[in-house]
Amino acid sequence: MRSIAALVFPGFETLDLFGPIEMFGLLRDEFSISIVAEQPGEVASAQGPRASVERTLSEAMHFDMLLVPGGPGTRTELNNPVVLDWLKTASANAEIIMSVCTGSVLLASAGLLDGRKATSNKMSFDWVTEQGPDVDWVAKARWVEDGRFFTSSGVSAGMDMSLAVITRLLDRAAADKVAQIAEYEWHDNAARDPFADLYGLG
Amino acid sequence: MRSIAALVFPGFETLDLFGPIEMFGLLRDEFSISIVAEQPGEVASAQGPRASVERTLSEAMHFDMLLVPGGPGTRTELNNPVVLDWLKTASANAEIIMSVCTGSVLLASAGLLDGRKATSNKMSFDWVTEQGPDVDWVAKARWVEDGRFFTSSGVSAGMDMSLAVITRLLDRAAADKVAQIAEYEWHDNAARDPFADLYGLG
Repeated sequence: MRSIAALVFPGFETLDLFGPIEMFGLLRDEFSISIVAEQPGEVASAQGPRASVERTLSEAMHFDMLLVPGGPGTRTELNNPVVLDWLKTASANAEIIMSVCTGSVLLASAGLLDGRKATSNKMSFDWVTEQGPDVDWVAKARWVEDGRFFTSSGVSAGMDMSLAVITRLLDRAAADKVAQIAEYEWHDNAARDPFADLYGLG
Repeated sequence: MRSIAALVFPGFETLDLFGPIEMFGLLRDEFSISIVAEQPGEVASAQGPRASVERTLSEAMHFDMLLVPGGPGTRTELNNPVVLDWLKTASANAEIIMSVCTGSVLLASAGLLDGRKATSNKMSFDWVTEQGPDVDWVAKARWVEDGRFFTSSGVSAGMDMSLAVITRLLDRAAADKVAQIAEYEWHDNAARDPFADLYGLG
């Protein structure tokens, strides 16, 4: 059983968080998920509905995996030392660190992606890359895997990345089973990225 | 601006709820979303994390649109008169009523789908159809549109259905814009359903 800390902050992107939670949560014998945030209580997503915080960052240091969503709130959090310090500390012993969409900006701001390959949201790609000048940003990728770090492209790409993580940690059969239960047509080729082309990054 | 009531109950399926919330929530000038439930507080999904309830069913009668997720919790809720009565009352004046996955069982149990075409989760399709003997169940469909009622296939199909609803209420350009922001490859053909074939319903 692996523990996953799923970070939330005001203005997180709904599907960045809950797409991966669906995929890992369908394997409840393998993964347990905790929503973590700076403050206890509830945190509103960019789309309005609120997530319930289970543990605060100060009490949430030991997890096997981290999940960092993106969303408009990242533009504030990239200057939040509490979040950046937590990312540095909690990631030190984590087996897998994942970001979705502009969540990679928070990993980059914490210095965790320096010298690593990573990707992010394509619509905001210019802004993203400015926040991590020492990151080897990959424009055309559904997701990028570099050691313990998995970073995905925008929003729905987090689901594809999650299935790739499940394949790494368990096996392809487990990922296929999850995709079938979710009736999700997995885009399992990390290099295929029609949105990079759409936004002129191809 | 249209108001959406998104129903939750213990054991709702995460992505059934939050996939559509992402799609409608990206058009915050057009749609406002409220999480509604029988009791105030928090409601745990089948995957663990909890949604924060904004309004209880007794105070949530007037909405333009309803969103009913599925999940293992539907097997209890289909016998819950509070939920079924709310569905009957709240749907009476709603412009659009939507279900995802086994959420259609709740609509069927409330008698709202009698004589209508509808679809549901494919893995549980035999169980679903037993719960609505007077529904014209369509096995092979990503989603089904019958008047004010949109019912989708399992889990991730709710996102495709949501984009179809956006097309109906606004226009195709609005749906395409949402899909592009979410970097989501919309399966826009309602009749295409590889999961019906996978589960021997093709």
